Amino acid sequence: MRYTIVGMGLMGTAVARALASSGHDVAVWNRTHERAQVLESHGITAYEDVESAVDHAETIVLVLLDQATAFEVLGGQVDRIAGKAIINLMTGTPQEAAEFSSIAAQYGARYLDGAIECYPHHIGSPEALINLSGDAEVWAQHEDALKSVAGLSTFVGADPGAANVLDAALAGTFHSVALGALCEALAFLKAAGIDPAGPEVSIEYALEVFKEEALHLVAAVASDDFTTTEATLEVYLGAVRQWRSSMLASGQRASLMTAHLHNLEIAEAAGHGALGFGAQVLTTSSHRA
Amino acid sequence: MRYTIVGMGLMGTAVARALASSGHDVAVWNRTHERAQVLESHGITAYEDVESAVDHAETIVLVLLDQATAFEVLGGQVDRIAGKAIINLMTGTPQEAAEFSSIAAQYGARYLDGAIECYPHHIGSPEALINLSGDAEVWAQHEDALKSVAGLSTFVGADPGAANVLDAALAGTFHSVALGALCEALAFLKAAGIDPAGPEVSIEYALEVFKEEALHLVAAVASDDFTTTEATLEVYLGAVRQWRSSMLASGQRASLMTAHLHNLEIAEAAGHGALGFGAQVLTTSSHRA
Repeated sequence: MRYTIVGMGLMGTAVARALASSGHDVAVWNRTHERAQVLESHGITAYEDVESAVDHAETIVLVLLDQATAFEVLGGQVDRIAGKAIINLMTGTPQEAAEFSSIAAQYGARYLDGAIECYPHHIGSPEALINLSGDAEVWAQHEDALKSVAGLSTFVGADPGAANVLDAALAGTFHSVALGALCEALAFLKAAGIDPAGPEVSIEYALEVFKEEALHLVAAVASDDFTTTEATLEVYLGAVRQWRSSMLASGQRASLMTAHLHNLEIAEAAGHGALGFGAQVLTTSSHRA
Repeated sequence: MRYTIVGMGLMGTAVARALASSGHDVAVWNRTHERAQVLESHGITAYEDVESAVDHAETIVLVLLDQATAFEVLGGQVDRIAGKAIINLMTGTPQEAAEFSSIAAQYGARYLDGAIECYPHHIGSPEALINLSGDAEVWAQHEDALKSVAGLSTFVGADPGAANVLDAALAGTFHSVALGALCEALAFLKAAGIDPAGPEVSIEYALEVFKEEALHLVAAVASDDFTTTEATLEVYLGAVRQWRSSMLASGQRASLMTAHLHNLEIAEAAGHGALGFGAQVLTTSSHRA
């Protein structure tokens, strides 16, 4: 199988090197040729023109910035892509994946969408994860190659948007917001004169307790069972009001804490106060029930 | 050392049992006497009147709902507490801890404030954590007893409010908001027809990546070094805008994500876009710089 990787940023470069070092036939193309050329010492063919790069490939792997860039690069190549597979590792919206999939089909190409769930320095390791969705046959043909790039690579569904939904939910809504919450917490500690890396700050402990509770939460939400024998949503609401007061009193804006309070208030107003914390998933929709 | 535990809710009961089973002299009092009485089979003295319970103690441990309840219970006992130590395990605000400490001093009692960082079923285990702050001598006298209740118990500073600041920051601002973010993520998955407990949802992986990044973030914030060779705050801002669009398009309210976007926008407007994600701690204050 001949691969052409398009886009030699940090991530594209890591993908090309991992694929080549596991014995695959790899060519690359990049708008700025120098960034492609440096890979020739790794047994990779660097094309100066995108036409030759596309012609070389049975499978085109896109590691570009966004959908607009992808359409711009491939726009002049539509008569070259029939019969090939496109694996698009750009993280976009589920709607963009659906759009790309349907355009690819129109020109006779098969389409697999991916979302890379790790940093460039993880690429090539057994612990790296790329979620892929779309054409199940393309996945089956490339599973081994993709696992040489990211050992935990997983096919998450035939809907091309599924990988991007998982990305928006886990990397976005969970990971990014939770890190933002940690920023608010650390700023609050610093404002109180406490060193966030000091021995009295039990970050590792907090992360362990969080992990345990997060897994309980997933089980509760998956089973739609929000009954609890521990703290109810109402009890959390009281605690959140008090924590927020402490933050405001110390001069913090407490933006995430305020949005969190709002989520819990909406859940309580909907009558879920006596259920567990996870019952707030019943009221996160923007539509009235 | 003779201990009297005041307040026999789930948590108070667990504390009394852990202290008694590690060989300490324990008496208890509860407004509803039946909840105290059931502990007599564990070698614990249950008093019906609060006066006798306070007189019994060299050290009074409070596990009550809030500051108002504590003042109500101890209000008539101020002439009995001189020379005793009070360990207040209620989680309140830092301001409440300071107030309680100064009132205790006024009546000749020493004061140690605590915040319990685990659930009742963890009490008595080596992995349970109570943060304590205030009178360092009271801590030194009771360190062993407190570690029999929660093995990781730590003295976090002479400021009586320090344990509550840590609690508001880690249990509140971090833990509770991060769990809220997970709720928004899981609701988003469900809205897309994806089972949050399904094999394609890499929750454990997300929690591991989160832990790794959280530790990097703490190091960056502690050292005030926000330079980065990976994604800049500006790059995160672009990703957050896109993730949020996906959520809104699928009918989610995205409250936490919106507050998160706002935090990043404020940091960018302050000129921190080329720094790392953690640079947002520079702009979480509610005051203008």
